[in-house]
Amino acid sequence: MTNWIELDQNVRSWIKEAGERIRTSFDSELSIKTKSNRNDLVTDMDEATEKYFTEAIRHTYPDHQIMGEEGFGDDLHTLEGVTWIIDPIDGTMNFVHQQRNFAISIGIYDGAVGKLGYIYDVVHDELYFASKGEGAFMNGQRLPELEAVPVEDAIVALNALWVTDNKRIDPSVLGPLVQRARGIRSYGSAAIEMAYIAAGRLDAYLTMRLAPWDFAAGKILIEEVGGVVTDLEGNELDPLKKSSVFVGKPELHQTILNTYIKK
Amino acid sequence: MTNWIELDQNVRSWIKEAGERIRTSFDSELSIKTKSNRNDLVTDMDEATEKYFTEAIRHTYPDHQIMGEEGFGDDLHTLEGVTWIIDPIDGTMNFVHQQRNFAISIGIYDGAVGKLGYIYDVVHDELYFASKGEGAFMNGQRLPELEAVPVEDAIVALNALWVTDNKRIDPSVLGPLVQRARGIRSYGSAAIEMAYIAAGRLDAYLTMRLAPWDFAAGKILIEEVGGVVTDLEGNELDPLKKSSVFVGKPELHQTILNTYIKK
Repeated sequence: MTNWIELDQNVRSWIKEAGERIRTSFDSELSIKTKSNRNDLVTDMDEATEKYFTEAIRHTYPDHQIMGEEGFGDDLHTLEGVTWIIDPIDGTMNFVHQQRNFAISIGIYDGAVGKLGYIYDVVHDELYFASKGEGAFMNGQRLPELEAVPVEDAIVALNALWVTDNKRIDPSVLGPLVQRARGIRSYGSAAIEMAYIAAGRLDAYLTMRLAPWDFAAGKILIEEVGGVVTDLEGNELDPLKKSSVFVGKPELHQTILNTYIKK
Repeated sequence: MTNWIELDQNVRSWIKEAGERIRTSFDSELSIKTKSNRNDLVTDMDEATEKYFTEAIRHTYPDHQIMGEEGFGDDLHTLEGVTWIIDPIDGTMNFVHQQRNFAISIGIYDGAVGKLGYIYDVVHDELYFASKGEGAFMNGQRLPELEAVPVEDAIVALNALWVTDNKRIDPSVLGPLVQRARGIRSYGSAAIEMAYIAAGRLDAYLTMRLAPWDFAAGKILIEEVGGVVTDLEGNELDPLKKSSVFVGKPELHQTILNTYIKK
């Protein structure tokens, strides 16, 4: 049997340590920037962070499965036992260009059930956490249940790309939503955007292609406060597959689905 | 003669005090939210903050002109003597929905010349500051001169609204820029977006309608690090008039103007 209390304590200490290493890397970054190209730098930190987590997990929980963006995990086909789904740096472009607005994202599944979700905004030192059935929290403060909101009062996270010509969606589908919503935002990190949904700072978020490590933790967080997490057509997400992602407050999710997407 | 050193010290202490009052207001906000509507709340804090600044300025500098978003300033027609252009809370919608991602913005003009610019990200306690000819700083750390970047490496701040049907610009003008740029972001606060440009975290920012208090401080900051600040057609901004705003790194600004906007 997994000792979830102890596991939670371990994850927290690993996240804090990984965050500290990433923040420290900013000091050396200025000199690296001129010698190497941006993508080298980011690959180094992405990889180093994922390696840190996978080594810690394998040492402490040798029978757990790991799926990670950078490939240090296992080649998974099923959710069996305990599975860790990890994005060491979600929002890589922000990490490189802004040194902020990126997050460590870890979703932990018990069989097929999302059990623990962690999104750590490294620079602002904000840890969003949810434990299935026990609530969601931001730095220890409980996040309230999400309440319904009409489209005209909603702030929607949506990248402008999805309302111009692109490979994944007809730009006319979401254009009317952009015009109707109170405001449109785009932060460039799915984990941050999903944490914002869980915290009630955004009301809906739509994006056309994410990997499991982008949404694994956010799904657990959002569902824990009563939000709805599906793909663009309203189907449940498979934690092992790439997919479009559409999350939102209750009722608002249904309204957007019926009024804008399915129309 | 204005003692600019002393004035700068005064502005900083007023900004810190106003920021403290805004942060404190979050504690009472939760109870207010249920009794009143959102817009009441924000009007109260916007007005209280602007009033605080105008009273402080009028007491200390009775001969200075003030232009403020909430109307506690003067009815200005010319830039004469010293003029303060103030947005007490830039990003009002973020203030209400997110309790973050808004800023106090103060631009101070000496005649027609932008002399001092302050953008204070209240929640993250980050003060962006520029003094004409003397550099730009974030919390005391000097911001480096902006360097040219090609469009395909650029992060552009642009609200999705401007690439869907809207009253101000044909959506086909900026669509190709959205598709070509490395990334698109939208934060919902012109002051924050302009501070991000000055800090090199964004490479260009385009928006269709801002008031002087939205861009007065940002213009001074961006120009101080070598960025370019114009309206959408490439004309200089009038600090007393509403306008479209297009800011960017050197060369990139020209490229976007020639390749996407004027085409």
